[in-house]
Amino acid sequence: MPLDILALAAHRDDVEQTCGGTLLKMAERGYRTGILDLTQGEMGTRGTAEDRAREAGEAARILKASWRQALDIPDGRVENTWENRLKVARVLREQRPRVLILPYWEGRHPDHYTASVLGYEAAFLAGLAKLNLSSQLSALSSQKPGVSSEFSGFTARPGQSSTSPEGAKKDSPGRKSGDPSANDRVPEGRHSDGLAPHRPFKIIYASLYRDVRPTFVVDITEQFETRFKSLMAYKSQFTDQQAGSGIFPAQADIRARVESMARFYGMQAGVTYAEPFVQKEMGLIDDLLAIPVRSI
Amino acid sequence: MPLDILALAAHRDDVEQTCGGTLLKMAERGYRTGILDLTQGEMGTRGTAEDRAREAGEAARILKASWRQALDIPDGRVENTWENRLKVARVLREQRPRVLILPYWEGRHPDHYTASVLGYEAAFLAGLAKLNLSSQLSALSSQKPGVSSEFSGFTARPGQSSTSPEGAKKDSPGRKSGDPSANDRVPEGRHSDGLAPHRPFKIIYASLYRDVRPTFVVDITEQFETRFKSLMAYKSQFTDQQAGSGIFPAQADIRARVESMARFYGMQAGVTYAEPFVQKEMGLIDDLLAIPVRSI
Amino acid sequence: MPLDILALAAHRDDVEQTCGGTLLKMAERGYRTGILDLTQGEMGTRGTAEDRAREAGEAARILKASWRQALDIPDGRVENTWENRLKVARVLREQRPRVLILPYWEGRHPDHYTASVLGYEAAFLAGLAKLNLSSQLSALSSQKPGVSSEFSGFTARPGQSSTSPEGAKKDSPGRKSGDPSANDRVPEGRHSDGLAPHRPFKIIYASLYRDVRPTFVVDITEQFETRFKSLMAYKSQFTDQQAGSGIFPAQADIRARVESMARFYGMQAGVTYAEPFVQKEMGLIDDLLAIPVRSI
Amino acid sequence: MPLDILALAAHRDDVEQTCGGTLLKMAERGYRTGILDLTQGEMGTRGTAEDRAREAGEAARILKASWRQALDIPDGRVENTWENRLKVARVLREQRPRVLILPYWEGRHPDHYTASVLGYEAAFLAGLAKLNLSSQLSALSSQKPGVSSEFSGFTARPGQSSTSPEGAKKDSPGRKSGDPSANDRVPEGRHSDGLAPHRPFKIIYASLYRDVRPTFVVDITEQFETRFKSLMAYKSQFTDQQAGSGIFPAQADIRARVESMARFYGMQAGVTYAEPFVQKEMGLIDDLLAIPVRSI
Amino acid sequence: MPLDILALAAHRDDVEQTCGGTLLKMAERGYRTGILDLTQGEMGTRGTAEDRAREAGEAARILKASWRQALDIPDGRVENTWENRLKVARVLREQRPRVLILPYWEGRHPDHYTASVLGYEAAFLAGLAKLNLSSQLSALSSQKPGVSSEFSGFTARPGQSSTSPEGAKKDSPGRKSGDPSANDRVPEGRHSDGLAPHRPFKIIYASLYRDVRPTFVVDITEQFETRFKSLMAYKSQFTDQQAGSGIFPAQADIRARVESMARFYGMQAGVTYAEPFVQKEMGLIDDLLAIPVRSI
Amino acid sequence: MPLDILALAAHRDDVEQTCGGTLLKMAERGYRTGILDLTQGEMGTRGTAEDRAREAGEAARILKASWRQALDIPDGRVENTWENRLKVARVLREQRPRVLILPYWEGRHPDHYTASVLGYEAAFLAGLAKLNLSSQLSALSSQKPGVSSEFSGFTARPGQSSTSPEGAKKDSPGRKSGDPSANDRVPEGRHSDGLAPHRPFKIIYASLYRDVRPTFVVDITEQFETRFKSLMAYKSQFTDQQAGSGIFPAQADIRARVESMARFYGMQAGVTYAEPFVQKEMGLIDDLLAIPVRSI
Repeated sequence: MPLDILALAAHRDDVEQTCGGTLLKMAERGYRTGILDLTQGEMGTRGTAEDRAREAGEAARILKASWRQALDIPDGRVENTWENRLKVARVLREQRPRVLILPYWEGRHPDHYTASVLGYEAAFLAGLAKLNLSSQLSALSSQKPGVSSEFSGFTARPGQSSTSPEGAKKDSPGRKSGDPSANDRVPEGRHSDGLAPHRPFKIIYASLYRDVRPTFVVDITEQFETRFKSLMAYKSQFTDQQAGSGIFPAQADIRARVESMARFYGMQAGVTYAEPFVQKEMGLIDDLLAIPVRSI
Repeated sequence: MPLDILALAAHRDDVEQTCGGTLLKMAERGYRTGILDLTQGEMGTRGTAEDRAREAGEAARILKASWRQALDIPDGRVENTWENRLKVARVLREQRPRVLILPYWEGRHPDHYTASVLGYEAAFLAGLAKLNLSSQLSALSSQKPGVSSEFSGFTARPGQSSTSPEGAKKDSPGRKSGDPSANDRVPEGRHSDGLAPHRPFKIIYASLYRDVRPTFVVDITEQFETRFKSLMAYKSQFTDQQAGSGIFPAQADIRARVESMARFYGMQAGVTYAEPFVQKEMGLIDDLLAIPVRSI
Repeated sequence: MPLDILALAAHRDDVEQTCGGTLLKMAERGYRTGILDLTQGEMGTRGTAEDRAREAGEAARILKASWRQALDIPDGRVENTWENRLKVARVLREQRPRVLILPYWEGRHPDHYTASVLGYEAAFLAGLAKLNLSSQLSALSSQKPGVSSEFSGFTARPGQSSTSPEGAKKDSPGRKSGDPSANDRVPEGRHSDGLAPHRPFKIIYASLYRDVRPTFVVDITEQFETRFKSLMAYKSQFTDQQAGSGIFPAQADIRARVESMARFYGMQAGVTYAEPFVQKEMGLIDDLLAIPVRSI
Repeated sequence: MPLDILALAAHRDDVEQTCGGTLLKMAERGYRTGILDLTQGEMGTRGTAEDRAREAGEAARILKASWRQALDIPDGRVENTWENRLKVARVLREQRPRVLILPYWEGRHPDHYTASVLGYEAAFLAGLAKLNLSSQLSALSSQKPGVSSEFSGFTARPGQSSTSPEGAKKDSPGRKSGDPSANDRVPEGRHSDGLAPHRPFKIIYASLYRDVRPTFVVDITEQFETRFKSLMAYKSQFTDQQAGSGIFPAQADIRARVESMARFYGMQAGVTYAEPFVQKEMGLIDDLLAIPVRSI
Repeated sequence: MPLDILALAAHRDDVEQTCGGTLLKMAERGYRTGILDLTQGEMGTRGTAEDRAREAGEAARILKASWRQALDIPDGRVENTWENRLKVARVLREQRPRVLILPYWEGRHPDHYTASVLGYEAAFLAGLAKLNLSSQLSALSSQKPGVSSEFSGFTARPGQSSTSPEGAKKDSPGRKSGDPSANDRVPEGRHSDGLAPHRPFKIIYASLYRDVRPTFVVDITEQFETRFKSLMAYKSQFTDQQAGSGIFPAQADIRARVESMARFYGMQAGVTYAEPFVQKEMGLIDDLLAIPVRSI
Repeated sequence: MPLDILALAAHRDDVEQTCGGTLLKMAERGYRTGILDLTQGEMGTRGTAEDRAREAGEAARILKASWRQALDIPDGRVENTWENRLKVARVLREQRPRVLILPYWEGRHPDHYTASVLGYEAAFLAGLAKLNLSSQLSALSSQKPGVSSEFSGFTARPGQSSTSPEGAKKDSPGRKSGDPSANDRVPEGRHSDGLAPHRPFKIIYASLYRDVRPTFVVDITEQFETRFKSLMAYKSQFTDQQAGSGIFPAQADIRARVESMARFYGMQAGVTYAEPFVQKEMGLIDDLLAIPVRSI
């Protein structure tokens, strides 16, 4: 079953900070949401990759995500290589999300902004009808020993999403037919690797970490507390401890920061808490009376 | 009965060129739309103010507008004065639109960009609970003889809008109660002049004349031909004739230009014809799956 | 005794919201600060101009301001006229501030952005050696009856500023000699009206109300609580009451908003609470090791 | 002993042109400054890499730099590879600068703008507590023969800096404790390779080559002549000669160009000569009276 | 005989600083150039309006201008009023320039940026076929006593321009017929006031005073020295003297500043000295091989 | 014989869409034009690489191009590697164009924006006097088997260009001597590989695919129909067929789109059809009377 929304980020716990409330809100509407972490967090000052894998699974459950995996791209060394693009493209063909959330394309952490370009270009590749991902990836792994793609993953138990996605999708203008990629303008036809081409219909950028003007925000007033809990699931990162006490704010401080950011973006749109996003395309408005944010 | 949408422009035939298709589309959805022309066109190279009044009425009928009037601000001399702000504010209190469409705030014609600021500031004034417009305007006219506000107007016959606006409004997230200004956060209470304060909920800017990136476009594919007819209703301006033949393109050329502009903006959003708008506020998106313009 | 800093705003209680913490901080450093409100607030939905005058005095005391006055420009009608420029220029010559804080030049409220331009142009006029403000103003008042300049003011009792401003000024690179305007490059010489020309050395713009990127912020962590008290001094505006309950947020909500804004800007610079400002000029840095905000 | 400031550039003689005056000024204040040239200049039209090494040493002495080295990245082929990032990161851990000056991130010469990104990402890497640079670099050199890191370097003789850096640092708000990286928020602890993680506190961008608006300039009026001498130390480049006479301006012209650029940026800030810089972060101002550039 | 180029500025000696070299170059090509100063300089710290009138005439002769006049708009009070627009529009109809040079629309001096908008809107008015300037201006002067339009002017002696303008114009793509306004798309026909409507074909903005990126520069290497002489013709302003010694740079300094600015802009385009301009419209290039500024 | 203009793009049929009219116009003026396609189109949904090679040759003939080749960079995987830069640099040294047209540096298709950076950096490399391309390329191919540079090319028959390029070049300000690279400021001297260094004098960016404001447009009114024919020469892409009918617009629609785009950009400059370009450098204007696009 294809995902409706996939959020891609460089590190476990990134998504929880930038668009966790939005993912939860969409899951509550009945959509199938997923999270792809490019790295496994082995460079993190606190905790091990294993700790973070467990915590990431817990956070995914809290956010009602249907799917979460981590690739094996080295932490601190996310690069926009052909191999990495292929790896991400394979996930996109497997999970077939209609909406892809990427990190914003500027930022302080190189892994973040590189993940943005990597995700975009992988989405392009995933839609190329003549590109056989399996043969490309196995060509690479035969060349260079050590190239593997063992996923460290999480898949929601069947039935986890209690509301019916189909019901929700009926109201969605984007999904018009039973075939989820029918209107995605990528030629159909299953490859010999079993993965038909797929390109997300919409790509948006989670911009929380960047002082850039958002194109839009998503109201997460109802989801704010649960989203905060998903962040706190990363006990190895956010409980007060000795290691990295110079880098990490005290847990008491985190709540205040997270809340202020969410409230700041909420204020821009007349709601209590919100998460900010950028989209590159123009908007298309159907009903002027339905534009939600007041002007004056 | 309050208007749902009011489009304000400096000159008769401006609205037809910048947002006529959008006004028609909204009228066809059942909304009550109106047009406020600030001047009567007496400086136009072709035709008289009387010709243009007649043509403006005809164009309004073609666009299914419920209301149209022209103020007496001198053509070629639209200024953002207190008096002009009061005049526009009075119209806003009388017509009580929820959405106000202004010209974009930069442009070649000074009347256009000044109309933008004038309209914005009048919208602000119209919402001030303690401002009595009638007494302010009569104070001005006693000071300066010659200040009058004779409107040259058009009002649609009752029943003209065949579809039911109320039905449409039920689906509109903006209008939540019977009282159209209830959620407009302007204190209620009727002034001694009979005009309660009113501030439009939303102000957007028609940007067709300016090479600025629109925030969004409105699909007018279905309305394009009728909108073009509304422009052609200005026979004094657009029929081939001697006067101004150096300034005005030949009629044969106008069709090509109007169509190319509409198609250009349509292409940006994956539709055939569209009209471009700018909004100053951020967007607020409720459903990521419903964002309409594809990314890649 | 000249002011070190003058904050100009359209309405009483504007300064408290945009730069009150900064004013307080500077007063605590020993500088003489002042506040010029252009209007007296008679258009406010809640309270009377008299209420606001009393509250403004109380707020000024809380912020340790040495001086505060309100001009008689009509509320809701701040215009950049010659007369208004002269009025503000007279205050600048009388109070002789070295730093002038203006509202940012874009915003939602026309009074705010007009106050910005008016303040800037008045600062220019105030420095013109050959301009005699008194004769210009009396020429105007003889022409138009009703032009008066009755100030509704507040002046701190002598000795109010307990720390010594001169001591502080010794450390200030700007003020190099005893004569406060010596290095302000405006020709000296007292006019027949007793007011020597004066131009502020520095003009900065308080940008809190606008989603514009600040040039810099001022850390107000120590001043935050007192600044909030100064805002709450406007009891007519911020206590829960019937009038305007649709416009005004409940008092419980105000605290959260004010805090989130201050914290958001603080986070940009690594401090807890801050107020944002824009300056038009480039910076001039003397010591690279002393640049305070970390990069990565 | 750690550096206070390190300027990184693609080619020998780049630093002399973009921020040499600033480096000299900081050295005169008692700071330890250093220069890292990524390449050895073997592609230069004039002179050999050996000529340039000698000249670079001479220029460093003129600028009172405490340290200068050149990496072995190929001239004309500066690439943002993992290996190059590791090489730069090793220098950063060894020299431990608090301030890092990079070239601006846009420009005409690909080596320049690539050096900017490479330097930034290396600074990020250098601070990762779990990254062992030595083992990473030796892994690379065992893989690919020919990867070496022979530095072509210059180290100032002990005692060269006649003024005391410690005295200067007492006045510096940035360095608050004896440990130079104490407030740099990177976890401490020495690696097995003997190089503790280190991340510069501040990264700024020398923008002389780009018509971009600087964030700030540094007054180099006192340093201008000496800085020009440091540039002239590159005799192989700047003496009149046959080779490259089509590319290089005559020596007589260089003086006029260098002076005009410095004066142009000086004029923006009211000083005679200055060098321009961009910083990405907001400013943080402590004393409004101390902002140096006048507004009007 | 119509002007080819008219440069409009707020104060005498503005044009000499921002576009004097360009005016001279165009005059040397055989074009008729003119200068319109809006004010007479009575607010200047140094010298009287009479001094400046004499100096302006001398400067015009040095720049080979064919025409120069000063309007009677008060110095320090340039406002974009109807009356001022009419005054400027009358000059435009009388002098009929094809190219109008305005000050850039942002700046430090309010007179400068207001002159920019005033000039633009006057150019618009001047082209309105139905606007009778004489009757409008006399209506104003009957209303308000004291409104006069005494020009303080300078007209070049016949034959002053030694090269033939017509010869030059033959090479100009703009002027295609004998009638100078024939292709200016403004309806012809002489008004009862003897002034046919006229709108400049091209409006460009002299941007020297503003750190804005120019659209293009004009090479004034050959004109630089003479242009500097035209500035020095303002003896009352630029000779060393007591009055205003705090504001004005010493004469020795002026040369260095003027030269650095010209050289800075020259360097952007590969020439020695240049003056910068902004145009709002896109360019139209006929021959890609003829684009003059090298890229790399 | 060197090319005057070379247009580089990622895919066959890109150039036809973005700057085909301009290439044709320049060929008609007598210039030698060329097209370099980086890939051979093997990833295209419709048709084979062989089909596209044949069609590309036909399109080149229609556009009167003197030269066209395709490199062997993989379609869908245009990367800015050292090897690819060397390949493009070799073409630049062989063909020696004075003007290089690149795709704009942002876009939807990664191949497009990467081609832009790759082309720019290759142009830089091609001018390095000490870089021996042949030895660099053969070093690479010995390392990695499979690196070849078999071109799939097209060269116009001698005499194809009926007008004389030399005649045209006489009017061109750029080409001042017989040696086409004489004023290109790259040191001369033939390498052992027979390819003297060469750097294009001018690089411009075809921006049709991007909603970015062009610096200038080129009037292609006379060339529009032939340019459209060159696009239709790609029968495998643009005839109506089953494969990819979801991605490709029907042929009937293409004409309307292409025409609207061309007309839209034409309208910006007062001509019927145009193609848009961006240049990074400032303009340099010699004659203000010759600026072609009217302002108002």
